[in-house]
Amino acid sequence: MSTSHPTILVVNDDGITAPGIKALMHAMKELGKVVVVAPDSPQSGMGHAITIGSPLRLDKMELYDDIESYSCSGTPVDCVKLAVTKIFKGKKPDLCVSGINHGLNNSINILYSGTMSAAVEGAIESIPSIGFSLDDYTLQADFSHCIKFVKEIAEQVLQNGLPSATLLNVNFPNTHHIKGIKICRQANAKWAEEFDERHDPYKRPYYWLTGVFQVNDKGEDTDVWALENHYASVVPVQFDMTAHHAIPLLNNWKFNT
Amino acid sequence: MSTSHPTILVVNDDGITAPGIKALMHAMKELGKVVVVAPDSPQSGMGHAITIGSPLRLDKMELYDDIESYSCSGTPVDCVKLAVTKIFKGKKPDLCVSGINHGLNNSINILYSGTMSAAVEGAIESIPSIGFSLDDYTLQADFSHCIKFVKEIAEQVLQNGLPSATLLNVNFPNTHHIKGIKICRQANAKWAEEFDERHDPYKRPYYWLTGVFQVNDKGEDTDVWALENHYASVVPVQFDMTAHHAIPLLNNWKFNT
Repeated sequence: MSTSHPTILVVNDDGITAPGIKALMHAMKELGKVVVVAPDSPQSGMGHAITIGSPLRLDKMELYDDIESYSCSGTPVDCVKLAVTKIFKGKKPDLCVSGINHGLNNSINILYSGTMSAAVEGAIESIPSIGFSLDDYTLQADFSHCIKFVKEIAEQVLQNGLPSATLLNVNFPNTHHIKGIKICRQANAKWAEEFDERHDPYKRPYYWLTGVFQVNDKGEDTDVWALENHYASVVPVQFDMTAHHAIPLLNNWKFNT
Repeated sequence: MSTSHPTILVVNDDGITAPGIKALMHAMKELGKVVVVAPDSPQSGMGHAITIGSPLRLDKMELYDDIESYSCSGTPVDCVKLAVTKIFKGKKPDLCVSGINHGLNNSINILYSGTMSAAVEGAIESIPSIGFSLDDYTLQADFSHCIKFVKEIAEQVLQNGLPSATLLNVNFPNTHHIKGIKICRQANAKWAEEFDERHDPYKRPYYWLTGVFQVNDKGEDTDVWALENHYASVVPVQFDMTAHHAIPLLNNWKFNT
């Protein structure tokens, strides 16, 4: 897995001009050859969406000195698919990193996150993949304290590889005093939705999605616990969504058909 | 779990006028009170996307006799969130069914599918949830042979419930001679992307996503095997994406930070 000068694909969901992707590409430049392929506009909350009904654009940019970068009109997952097919052309990168996301992607948020879905797509493509996120949702987020962790985790993955069909979900608390790295499981939590109902000038209602994050998990081995206690959380993630434990139970159901 | 006249939320990703959702709502009408909340336009491939950057519309429709139905401007997952919050208002439905999708959602396709993501969101909301899909991608798809299976599986879920934090992914082969129901795991497979490159009238390139589905799994316990052998496949699905087996390995990594 280890090569002396690895090729590293950098993606995100906040768009190619986001401070988070700049921090990530500069960190990765110290480890190898960086190629950036990112959405041309913010794509937060896009999950694992792909573009089927319309075509995609992929434009080479001259945004960053010494870094090959491309802007894509599609989703974060589209970016990975286009990168693998049209830029790397079958010679896959040694690593795919996504982020650094402006905002946490811990627990169930992995499902909604374009940043994490891009990393999942990297793993589906058999590329060792990591998603990084920081607990700061602003465009002014300061990523400087995350960088040594980002580099160390990326180096470990380049050296050791990852188990087949897995990737890493890494989240950072918003403190300059991170205590260290905790390997975790995804906490059991959900969003309790609230829709802010407003009316347009024609008196018709419309709804803004808001909500409160509810953690129903007291475990001290979760990503939520780690972040609350000022650790960087690392969750190994798989894309086999089979609930294997439920198969014997369902096999006991009697179907007439 | 069982009630004499259950309330059933019907959603999909092909849109509120798709033949697949009509077939599903009519099947469900025989089991209980149906409420339909579906996208106002096709949303295939939207995965678990949610709408953050713009507001949503939710309009009551008079499309179908005796069936309460709403059209939503958002994604399939938005439909479930709006239904739970604004229509059911906390009194959750007894069952959430999604589909019947025009096209398979077996194997890895669960990640890309709006239909399956809506069912996943139902499960996150602690509603027993099932996604249904047929191996026919056309608008003219004939769902008649699926209906007895759809009803029987839905009845079993209403009677027995499902294990906590799981849902069902049900796929039907495109044959009128379905041999029966197989409980399966998600096959190990992926899309080998090909992008069809074209040029616009201004000579600029654009790309259409296409691809070939590659199955790297010879197991006879997978959904791909079941469908190829003319069975309806039922995969129990979980939304805990933690690769629990990888935690001990990662705990052996030595971090300097």
